[in-house]
Amino acid sequence: MKRVAILFLMGVLIGGAQSTDEQYLKNFYNTALLNGESYEWLDYMSNHIGSRLTGSVGAQMAVDYTKEELDKLGLDKVWLQPVTVKKWVRGAKEYAYIKTETGNTNLPICALGGSSPTLPLGITTEVIEVKSIDELKTLTRDRVEGRIVFFNRPMQADLIQTFEAYSGCVDQRVHGAEEAAKLGAAAVFVRSMNLRIDDLPHTGTMSYGDLPEERRIPAAAISTSAAEILSAMLSATPDLQVHFKQSCGYRGKVDSYNVIGEIKGSEKPEEIILVGGHLDSWDLGDGSHDDGAGCVQSMEVLRMFKVLDYKPKHTIRVVLFMNEESGLDGALKYAEEAERKNEKHLFALESDAGGFTPRGFSFDCNDEQFNVISSWSTLFKPYLIHYFEKGGSGADVGPLKKEGTMLAGLRPDSQRYFDYHHAANDRFDAVNKRELELGAATMTSLIYLVDKNF
Amino acid sequence: MKRVAILFLMGVLIGGAQSTDEQYLKNFYNTALLNGESYEWLDYMSNHIGSRLTGSVGAQMAVDYTKEELDKLGLDKVWLQPVTVKKWVRGAKEYAYIKTETGNTNLPICALGGSSPTLPLGITTEVIEVKSIDELKTLTRDRVEGRIVFFNRPMQADLIQTFEAYSGCVDQRVHGAEEAAKLGAAAVFVRSMNLRIDDLPHTGTMSYGDLPEERRIPAAAISTSAAEILSAMLSATPDLQVHFKQSCGYRGKVDSYNVIGEIKGSEKPEEIILVGGHLDSWDLGDGSHDDGAGCVQSMEVLRMFKVLDYKPKHTIRVVLFMNEESGLDGALKYAEEAERKNEKHLFALESDAGGFTPRGFSFDCNDEQFNVISSWSTLFKPYLIHYFEKGGSGADVGPLKKEGTMLAGLRPDSQRYFDYHHAANDRFDAVNKRELELGAATMTSLIYLVDKNF
Repeated sequence: MKRVAILFLMGVLIGGAQSTDEQYLKNFYNTALLNGESYEWLDYMSNHIGSRLTGSVGAQMAVDYTKEELDKLGLDKVWLQPVTVKKWVRGAKEYAYIKTETGNTNLPICALGGSSPTLPLGITTEVIEVKSIDELKTLTRDRVEGRIVFFNRPMQADLIQTFEAYSGCVDQRVHGAEEAAKLGAAAVFVRSMNLRIDDLPHTGTMSYGDLPEERRIPAAAISTSAAEILSAMLSATPDLQVHFKQSCGYRGKVDSYNVIGEIKGSEKPEEIILVGGHLDSWDLGDGSHDDGAGCVQSMEVLRMFKVLDYKPKHTIRVVLFMNEESGLDGALKYAEEAERKNEKHLFALESDAGGFTPRGFSFDCNDEQFNVISSWSTLFKPYLIHYFEKGGSGADVGPLKKEGTMLAGLRPDSQRYFDYHHAANDRFDAVNKRELELGAATMTSLIYLVDKNF
Repeated sequence: MKRVAILFLMGVLIGGAQSTDEQYLKNFYNTALLNGESYEWLDYMSNHIGSRLTGSVGAQMAVDYTKEELDKLGLDKVWLQPVTVKKWVRGAKEYAYIKTETGNTNLPICALGGSSPTLPLGITTEVIEVKSIDELKTLTRDRVEGRIVFFNRPMQADLIQTFEAYSGCVDQRVHGAEEAAKLGAAAVFVRSMNLRIDDLPHTGTMSYGDLPEERRIPAAAISTSAAEILSAMLSATPDLQVHFKQSCGYRGKVDSYNVIGEIKGSEKPEEIILVGGHLDSWDLGDGSHDDGAGCVQSMEVLRMFKVLDYKPKHTIRVVLFMNEESGLDGALKYAEEAERKNEKHLFALESDAGGFTPRGFSFDCNDEQFNVISSWSTLFKPYLIHYFEKGGSGADVGPLKKEGTMLAGLRPDSQRYFDYHHAANDRFDAVNKRELELGAATMTSLIYLVDKNF
């Protein structure tokens, strides 16, 4: 550690005042790539702990582990912030198949997060395919009643930024069951939010709106490959029968935590610059991209400040939020507590778009602030960071917006994100060490510049 | 096909003259992502044909297949250009192990391309580790003679562009054996050109310079993980013995081909704009990234022009070069024939850096030309293409430089490239469909703009 700090100091001294920023960024990137911790942390989170479904043992283990690791960094304060969360469990492995005269055709499915179960013996019924909630609403009740509504609108492949394609489809997953239930459907299948054709169902949160419990119908994601097969078979045999069973459901509430650590600011300790990701994940993979990556990158920001002996003017705080995936409980709790304590958050950066090669950031701030931030883009050019745009930030930092905080989101390359998102292959081996580390260095560089210039 | 062309034409008409370029680019990207052929071609090349080592049956099958596919596109001319190549074969699987008292420790190795074999029973000797050719040259002959020289300088992880890290290390692989042989070494092991620590040896070409055949010593790549282990064991036991055997060697010359197709220019048919990659690969994987990707992307450029009914002013020619990997025979033959026929090449674009998300291009041209090209960068912004720099182009288009051709190389994201480069895991499943297609669209867009503006 000491050697790194001395080399860094030498670099700054040699570089002179004019190029101090350049030198700082170079040292952040060098440290992340040569002596980074993010990949080892992620290895532990993914391979030793595994999935971190809200309310699960894994989620609690991740709370304990990340607190312990933050404790080792010599920060000024590390603590747990209690959050009560609802516990939802998948139960026994779900299954569905098309009944045919020559045998059954298996359909890889998984329950959507928050879904109700089927009847214990499952259901067997016809399927009606629609491409959208709007199309569903054109159907009469007798076409829908008692059937499985199959939402099969694919993500739009010609959109360059895959998050746009996701936004254009995810209403089926979130609101499909509620709307289908209103027309008396027995269940819904939703095409997985995946741009590839493969056999993996992708889970994700869904909502029944105000529907009372007894009207809540089971909802499952179906793999893109199975969606294509089911659609083709429905064209040939509109009255085909599908059998479907799942056993998921809520199991009360449990105590959980946001994990928080901070370095006190030397000049404006009362102004907080936040960096974070979410600790919970879905249960099918190990959540390495979503959002183990964002957690370890955020921890790495504070670790690098300590290792390189950078004393921030503002308080730099890392927050690992609990339950981003199904309720945003941690983020809401954090914002509520911040308001209660009258804390001032100057800036909040979220990393929750995967551990892929970073391309830049999107910002939710005013024009004046954006002009200041944009002026730093040349500093990032040697690192091939080029994307500085106004736009969304992230779900967990969102609740801070009302207090006027500048918000930002790391924007990694998005092409492969939905290959893994919420699916069983979101695993450690899908994360490249360098790409993860470059993200951490890019975030650290931005936080440094915000600290220095605001 | 027809429907696509009509939609495209409508797009251009609606867009008006001012935004014609925007509309063209949009159509190239849409077509590549929604109706591309590049991924299917690569599937065939990688999974049906497999590796395409120069002089192998696979290489000949790839010549036949790509010619056949180009024939289907309705180009103005498709032909094979004969190239004589030297045939090198790996022979029986290589092996090496450290002899220890408690048993042997296996070292994953592979012969470097062009290497000589060991003696039929292999060799058993001591190992001397160096970090560079310079360090080797400081050693006296008696330290080296009869031993295996182990070049163990890692790629520099803090360089952002991994090709720079490769350039900084590859001299060990190319010239290590020649220099070690001059000091009487028995063989060389070279640390694989890989930024990860894993068990895969990465092959690649090497040269004996002017050394006569009897002085050529066997050379092998050793996996990064085994390099770390061997180095650690040498620290503890400098006189440890390694056994090493490989059976590779040259097997004469064979006839092979460059595969060429073109669309004749409508205004300046005598001026050629070339786009290409190389058809040969190493034998350990299936060469999907290196350079199956570049081949199918180059073919896709001409296919999209045909599908979208774009009539280029200049002749647009695709060239799939033979034997980039170990001699550049195809590229040299192509340039020689071009000179003999007095052909004028206006521009030549190579894709040989993997099928990853495209970031832009590097150009080898004069300032005036570069200014024109740079002015197009805003057109590429919606596609997150931001890298327009002067610099290298590619090995296969290099020989055209002497006739004043503008040269360019596609620059995809390079972070993962050396995870796969020349190793057994350079396989189809390491290529993401969207990333490959975005590269093809980006290349097509550049070729369109060059055709229109020069």
